[in-house]
Amino acid sequence: MDNINIGFNEKLEKQLNFIVEIDKIKSILRKSKLFHENRFENDAEHSWTICIMAFLLKEYSNFSVNIEKVILMLLIHDIVELDAGDTFLYSENRNNKYNDEAEAAERIFGLLDIEQREYFIDLWKEFEERKTNEAKFAAVFDRLEPLMQNYISEGYTWKKYNITYEMVIEKNKHIKEASEEIWNFVIKIFEKAVEKGYMKKNSETN
Amino acid sequence: MDNINIGFNEKLEKQLNFIVEIDKIKSILRKSKLFHENRFENDAEHSWTICIMAFLLKEYSNFSVNIEKVILMLLIHDIVELDAGDTFLYSENRNNKYNDEAEAAERIFGLLDIEQREYFIDLWKEFEERKTNEAKFAAVFDRLEPLMQNYISEGYTWKKYNITYEMVIEKNKHIKEASEEIWNFVIKIFEKAVEKGYMKKNSETN
Repeated sequence: MDNINIGFNEKLEKQLNFIVEIDKIKSILRKSKLFHENRFENDAEHSWTICIMAFLLKEYSNFSVNIEKVILMLLIHDIVELDAGDTFLYSENRNNKYNDEAEAAERIFGLLDIEQREYFIDLWKEFEERKTNEAKFAAVFDRLEPLMQNYISEGYTWKKYNITYEMVIEKNKHIKEASEEIWNFVIKIFEKAVEKGYMKKNSETN
Repeated sequence: MDNINIGFNEKLEKQLNFIVEIDKIKSILRKSKLFHENRFENDAEHSWTICIMAFLLKEYSNFSVNIEKVILMLLIHDIVELDAGDTFLYSENRNNKYNDEAEAAERIFGLLDIEQREYFIDLWKEFEERKTNEAKFAAVFDRLEPLMQNYISEGYTWKKYNITYEMVIEKNKHIKEASEEIWNFVIKIFEKAVEKGYMKKNSETN
């Protein structure tokens, strides 16, 4: 058996079976390892961490944000990977990911009644488009956790995929728009990572 | 290495190392298994699920709640288990758990500056005391997920620990105070569980 089949209060049962369905993201593994355990993190664990991060670090936002909305975005942002899979930040396929994920959002949030379906699809799109203050601030934490994981693991993913200093700057520079203070810290992490040999600069890679 | 040691922006570095420290709850296993995988759930995964549940099902609250606060409570409610461990709902030690957890809260949230430390300790205490609307509503989801997991696993934990219908009613009846509608559904789940042989009534256990 893999769902709730009581046949009582149809709307509530549908909502509970949505919860059961999205549980599958606990089997979707990311590219980075946990801080304290030698295993890859899954999407649910990642989402939990960055929700707490966003709340804890809200004082560093460059602009005012509705933190409830930021947290809701982060709670649900990876649910689409259930159908679309995890796409590595530096992968060439990353540009096609939006269409696959939009289809996933329709299918998965489509398990809910129209009001909640539309709410969640809009929230996910807002996150992806990164235009509102909330989406920009949420995006900071989606990047901050993995880069901390890479630093603490002495550059595990950076070394494995030959990621250079210039590449991480390019992929993370949007952090600055949402939080000057966090970006200044992130730069220091990258510099220290180069110094310790966890990551190379382009000039060192020939 | 197991923390961030850049030596720049001391307050932010402390907050990031709090994030690193609480990551250990990803190694704390619960008694119930995931819906789709034959392994025990960890505290971070559990917290992620019940945050989404609370938001998804807020329409069923018996009273008005500040849902942002409910979600924040659920995000942090199990962090104390980092030092105090997971205590089984039906365990006899459960009455001593509050003191151990209060000590854990002081140590772990004590990694933060006074303002955030006090905020989180108060939030955790509010959840534990279950007196405010937010704490009562949050408590619903801390119970609803594992009972769904037990139902879907055909009574895995109920059978393993000889948990009866009367015991689950007793341990979960507080749900009714926060949500009549969810409680009515939960009763149906328990009845169906008895019918299917996932759990026994006291009258059947001799």
